[in-house]
Formats: sequence, C-alpha cells, structure tokens
Amino acid sequence: MGLFITMEGPDGSGKSTQIDLLRDYLSGKGYDIIVCREPGGTKISEAIRQVILNKDFTEMGYMTEMLLYAAARAQLVEEVIRPALEEGKIVICDRFVESSAVYQGIARGMGIDLVYEVNRYAIGDTMPDLTIMIDIDAQTGISRKKKQAELDRMEREAMDFHERVAEGYRKIAEQHPDRIEKIDGRGSIEDIHRQITAAVDKIIS
Amino acid sequence: MGLFITMEGPDGSGKSTQIDLLRDYLSGKGYDIIVCREPGGTKISEAIRQVILNKDFTEMGYMTEMLLYAAARAQLVEEVIRPALEEGKIVICDRFVESSAVYQGIARGMGIDLVYEVNRYAIGDTMPDLTIMIDIDAQTGISRKKKQAELDRMEREAMDFHERVAEGYRKIAEQHPDRIEKIDGRGSIEDIHRQITAAVDKIIS
Repeated sequence: MGLFITMEGPDGSGKSTQIDLLRDYLSGKGYDIIVCREPGGTKISEAIRQVILNKDFTEMGYMTEMLLYAAARAQLVEEVIRPALEEGKIVICDRFVESSAVYQGIARGMGIDLVYEVNRYAIGDTMPDLTIMIDIDAQTGISRKKKQAELDRMEREAMDFHERVAEGYRKIAEQHPDRIEKIDGRGSIEDIHRQITAAVDKIIS
Repeated sequence: MGLFITMEGPDGSGKSTQIDLLRDYLSGKGYDIIVCREPGGTKISEAIRQVILNKDFTEMGYMTEMLLYAAARAQLVEEVIRPALEEGKIVICDRFVESSAVYQGIARGMGIDLVYEVNRYAIGDTMPDLTIMIDIDAQTGISRKKKQAELDRMEREAMDFHERVAEGYRKIAEQHPDRIEKIDGRGSIEDIHRQITAAVDKIIS
C-alpha cells in the first residue's frame, strides 16, 4: 500500500503552493506521486464541482451541499485514490474529509459526527495517513483569494463563516493530533515547506 | 399538514400519464396540488440530474450515484415538498426514496438498509403518506421507453438490471403493504387510474 497525504486549511492558506513544492520534493526522492484536488479530480467529480461552487446556487441547502461533496469524494476515492494507493503510490490530495468536517460540520453547524458518519459511506476505510493543516487567520486567507480570481460560492460566504472555518480547523487538529499536523501559515513559503517535509519524512521512515 | 403521495414503478410503467390524471382528479375536487419529479424539481436538483443521467458518465460508482440522488432529493424536500406540505397542499412526486431502495439498493446490490440509512439524512421525517407502485414487467416497460426518446444512463442498463428493478419493486411493496399500494400495470389507462383514485380516496377520507 502507498501513502495518502491530505492538505487542509482555510481558503488562501497556501495549500496549492505547498502541494507543488511537496510533489517536487517527493518526486526528487524517486516516489511515484499522484496529486488531486477536491471537489474534483475525475470527470464526474468535476461536473459535481460545477454544481457545488456555482455562485448562482445561493439557495443550496446544507444537507445537499454535504451530500454533493460526499458524492464527488466517493468517485475520486474509487476512481483515483484507492487504485493509486493499491499500486503503492503516494497520493497528495488538496482537501478531503476534514474539509467537510470543518466547513459543513462546524462552520455550517451540521455537527462533526454527522459529517463523518455520512462520509464513511463515501470513503470506506480510505482515510489519510497524514493530514497537513496550514493554520492561518481568516482575514489573511480571504484577502489573498480576492487578489487571485473571482470568488466561488463558498469563498463568497461572510467573514464570520471563514472565521468559523479557521477556528474549526484548529479544533479538528486538536482532536486528532495523531494524524493531523498543524503548521503555522504565517512563516515564509520555504519555512512552511520545511515543516511539511519534516512531518512527511517522519511518516515515510 | 398536507398529503404526500409518491408514484413509483419501473421505467415505462406509465407513471407520468397516471400522475397527470391524478392531478386533474384531485384538482377537480378542489385540492391544491404540487407535482414534482425526481431527480429534479428545483434548479439545483435539475443540475444534479444532468450529472446523474449523463449517458457519457458510464464510470460512475454506485456510491456516487446513490449520494447524488440523495443530494437532489434533499434539495427538493427542503425547497419544495416540505414547504408545500406545511401549507396543507397535496404533493405528488414522480419517484422518491423507494426508487433509490429499488435501483441502488436492490438492482445495484448495495442493500436496502444502507440506502434507507443514507436517505434518512436527506429527507428527515418527510416520508410519503402513500406510495403508488405500478407493477409492470421489465420488457414491456423498456420497449415503451425506446419508442419515446433517447434513453438516459439508467435506461441504457442491460435487461437483467431492469428485471431486478421490476422484481425489487414487488419485494418493497410486499415489505411495506401499509404504505405502498401495488397496482397491476397491465390494465387500461382508465382502469389503472380508477385503482389509483380508489387508493388515494381511502387515505384522504
């Protein structure tokens, strides 16, 4: 079996940049790497992503939203993640079940237990071996996002939603210190990268 | 509270025709009627429908499929069905949770219990007061469908799938004789309509 690493954190926490650096680092060591993102990563999951993030769908219910994320995740696990792990590859995924626990479970107030229960159907026993959580305050994250591109339905939420997300990530990281590595997102890109590789090296060895 | 009636049966069993007749019958008696169809019935659920029934998505996993139906259903319940029932209306829905129990639970082999469990999250306590199930053999149903239009992803399944659907509906009807009314779909349109109105009149009075 390979190794399953997920990257988590509020919008604008620098996940994509760090995933690129981590991929290069692990490729350089000779590992076979698959990188994917959520929601998406398969033709069907990308079609579901278009529904989830459509900025005109403001009337979407929280349960609908959670089930759509779970559906996109089920397809990604079945089509990409599980086969890659079975071939011994390292899978790095930009967001996974912890995003649902934080965004829907905590920030939307649906409850963490409910979210993990429903997602259990979607992912089975394909849980991450290591989750890197980049900790950043909500204001900093969203300001960065605003500079990059038009915001999607989730990014357009009010600032107190994003604050509940940032706080929610800290809570989840405290609850699962065994598998979630919290990293201070205020450092330089290189500094954060070094902290991430240290955590990854520890689990590989 | 209003009255929630669902219409079930294999593809080509004549549900739409019978729903039109039932609507006219109940409107004629002065009731306020809402008719909806699954998957669909709201802007968001119709967008999900496009993903579910896309005939190019042959690689869709069974769990993804079930979660997408549940997501579309959650939105329909929240946006249309529950508010209409609270206003005292009669809601007639073309397919509902029993379709998932039969198509995904039985015909796909995922298990009826699993399907009801996941759908419980989507619908809460909004269960039909009466389910009309039009019993027809698979061959007859699909032959009718082929004459009407291009078949969608579900309708394109092999004949043994449709046979498991027809058999599955009989099984579900036997398990819940209290709330599912099985009607012989081989009769004339008028004859089937009379049987349906008899069942509906019984529950209204």
